[in-house]
Amino acid sequence: MGLKDRIAAVEANYGRLRALGRDPSRLEFQNVWSPTEATLEGRPMMLFGTNNYLGLTFDPNVLEAATAATRALGSGTTGSRIANGSYGGHKALEAEIARFYAKQHCIVFSTGYVANIGMITALGGKDDVLLIDADSHASIYDGCKMADAETIRFRHNSPEDLAKKLRRLEGHPGDKIIIVEGIYSMLGDTAPLAEFAAVKREAGDNVYLMVDEAHSLGVLGESGRGQCQAAHVEDDCDFIVGTFSKSVGTIGGYCVSNVEGFDWIRSFCRPYMFTASMTPGTVSTARAAFRRMAERPELRAKLWSNSAALFRGLGDLGFETGPEVSPVVAVKLPAPEVAVALWNRLIDEGVYTNIAIPPATPNALSLLRVSVSAAHSEAQIERALGVFASVGAELGIIEPGTARGERFQVITGGAAAKEAGRTRTAQQGSANAAATR
Amino acid sequence: MGLKDRIAAVEANYGRLRALGRDPSRLEFQNVWSPTEATLEGRPMMLFGTNNYLGLTFDPNVLEAATAATRALGSGTTGSRIANGSYGGHKALEAEIARFYAKQHCIVFSTGYVANIGMITALGGKDDVLLIDADSHASIYDGCKMADAETIRFRHNSPEDLAKKLRRLEGHPGDKIIIVEGIYSMLGDTAPLAEFAAVKREAGDNVYLMVDEAHSLGVLGESGRGQCQAAHVEDDCDFIVGTFSKSVGTIGGYCVSNVEGFDWIRSFCRPYMFTASMTPGTVSTARAAFRRMAERPELRAKLWSNSAALFRGLGDLGFETGPEVSPVVAVKLPAPEVAVALWNRLIDEGVYTNIAIPPATPNALSLLRVSVSAAHSEAQIERALGVFASVGAELGIIEPGTARGERFQVITGGAAAKEAGRTRTAQQGSANAAATR
Repeated sequence: MGLKDRIAAVEANYGRLRALGRDPSRLEFQNVWSPTEATLEGRPMMLFGTNNYLGLTFDPNVLEAATAATRALGSGTTGSRIANGSYGGHKALEAEIARFYAKQHCIVFSTGYVANIGMITALGGKDDVLLIDADSHASIYDGCKMADAETIRFRHNSPEDLAKKLRRLEGHPGDKIIIVEGIYSMLGDTAPLAEFAAVKREAGDNVYLMVDEAHSLGVLGESGRGQCQAAHVEDDCDFIVGTFSKSVGTIGGYCVSNVEGFDWIRSFCRPYMFTASMTPGTVSTARAAFRRMAERPELRAKLWSNSAALFRGLGDLGFETGPEVSPVVAVKLPAPEVAVALWNRLIDEGVYTNIAIPPATPNALSLLRVSVSAAHSEAQIERALGVFASVGAELGIIEPGTARGERFQVITGGAAAKEAGRTRTAQQGSANAAATR
Repeated sequence: MGLKDRIAAVEANYGRLRALGRDPSRLEFQNVWSPTEATLEGRPMMLFGTNNYLGLTFDPNVLEAATAATRALGSGTTGSRIANGSYGGHKALEAEIARFYAKQHCIVFSTGYVANIGMITALGGKDDVLLIDADSHASIYDGCKMADAETIRFRHNSPEDLAKKLRRLEGHPGDKIIIVEGIYSMLGDTAPLAEFAAVKREAGDNVYLMVDEAHSLGVLGESGRGQCQAAHVEDDCDFIVGTFSKSVGTIGGYCVSNVEGFDWIRSFCRPYMFTASMTPGTVSTARAAFRRMAERPELRAKLWSNSAALFRGLGDLGFETGPEVSPVVAVKLPAPEVAVALWNRLIDEGVYTNIAIPPATPNALSLLRVSVSAAHSEAQIERALGVFASVGAELGIIEPGTARGERFQVITGGAAAKEAGRTRTAQQGSANAAATR
């Protein structure tokens, strides 16, 4: 199957969905005027499908830092970190993130995707084994594909399955690197990190635990460090990876660690070595955003009250949601066509969410990924729930109710979707079924 | 060999070089105040080791565009292009680059590294064959590693060897994708694209040519499109890839093409789909920089006169340089220790260049990569040549002369280096020996 065939296949597949409405991969916001408001198709849109958890993208301190650095240091470094692309700001950002995590070392990367493929290719050498959660993000799967190590998947969020797979590797000479995420981006569920850490400790030497806090930085933990902090297992997390394109509000990624000699990874981590470094504006944005996260813990509190309101509101309307309150609220739907129809009608009514359908979802789920920001007002959440109520009823996904807040039954395919949710197996999350962030 | 061993190995290797002076991978510029001037170790430094070919990083129009977009649209998009990260600016940038190249389609990526791994994984399917120049950049090698296709290397800049390898594939059912670069980043040599295009045309159907113009955009061709334009083979180049982190002065990458259905690559190119999109500031920087390139052709003329001055000046001093005048002037040295010594002494005297030693160089060369910008003044180039003259003589690399401009013989290892330059084989450019940009 050559390029022409691949293009024809995807055209046929997406063309079918496009016939039902908009093509999700071709939308563009003509304007974005706040963390929660944009113009789409010439009409105002409430944004409930971003990763702007703390709403920092329009924070005046952040914008001032970004523009001042651009004016002072230029629009780009025009070089990789190992050539001419290390400025004082890159080093300061690394030192500040290390301090934020109370870890000894930090390396920053130019994107979150590159942070994952960089760290995974650096850790996963020829005789090593990468043990990854089956629902891992595409960047983790892609890193494993590029790495020399063997890759073994274990059942999503199953420390038991991980332990079983580690036992089978007893006597294997290479390193074993366990990779999980703090919050999974599609269903908003958290990893049972205390249990994973216990499995790691029991597995002996040369076993490392890497946690991707992409969706949990600024969201979970006493000081916003993520799920490692919330689960009180930071000492067991050998490598904590994260991104600047969610809560931090720009682009880039990082890894912190206490592993001795960690800094030498700069000298054999090819995606780090051969990528242009972050622009001065982006570096200063990230530095300011980390400061704002520390200065404004009330943003995290607001994020969680908003999350609870949306999660409970959608559940009360009769939508089937993900397993726990989270800034990512998944609305599970019985079929791709239903997801596409709901997603389209919500946009018609001014509510933008993310659509996620197979093969881009774990376990072949069809869902809308509804995400919350600390910048959402209560009124915005109320309005969005109102639109969900009317559109959901119109499409027969929920029963029409007289008042929001009543508990309605899912009447179309809800049972099937629930069933699918129960039959997760180790086969889920194939290389294609990696979650969209 | 697990992580601890890899760290120990690289520590031993680099530690040895570090004992001779600075560690290239740990330098930082405390300040950068123009495309050609920075502060390093508290002292002023002339920058002769960047990719800032047109010096646009401090262009007032570019800076105004970057800061205005940041203020208007925020510090980041917090999403991938296929989720919430497509703004009007991303689409406009794509349309403008397509128009610049007179091609139908353009996709932009968040880094140049990701542009290469994205395009190569999208093009190189299971039954396909990637035919790459042995001196290819690391991002091309890494893309091949991540792709499902088989990879075959051909001798650097050898259309004959490529033709031979294509003949062996006759009857092979999959696509064949030839990948070369416009200018090679280490030695500054250009690809014989007319000859490569002829080989491609003769090889029949389902053979594609992809050219990476990372170092040639804004540098070569009548309107700065690169080596495809300079060699008059743009119609034969099915995929032209480039980066925003050299002449464009920020970060990002792109691919333009006339291949039918090209735009559908957005729906199966995982590094594109699963990376956060470029920030609004970066998008506007790139748009403004492309405009400036078109408005100011004199920058390209200045770049070439500077390149000629530096290339001839270094040759006249007795340094062995790369094969042709280029904004990248390689100074070939007989051993890594000599390269490290020269690089260190140049920095002592205020001249920053890039050091490139095995395993990061083609053919195990040890060299300094000296690069030129349109922003360099003639006086800066004269001063740099003066430092090269005195330091080169001090280290015994060139014979001391009474006046710059005389032709001196290389007295240390020059013959050996020249010999090495002649014995390039298909074995060169191993996966580890990819060139630094």
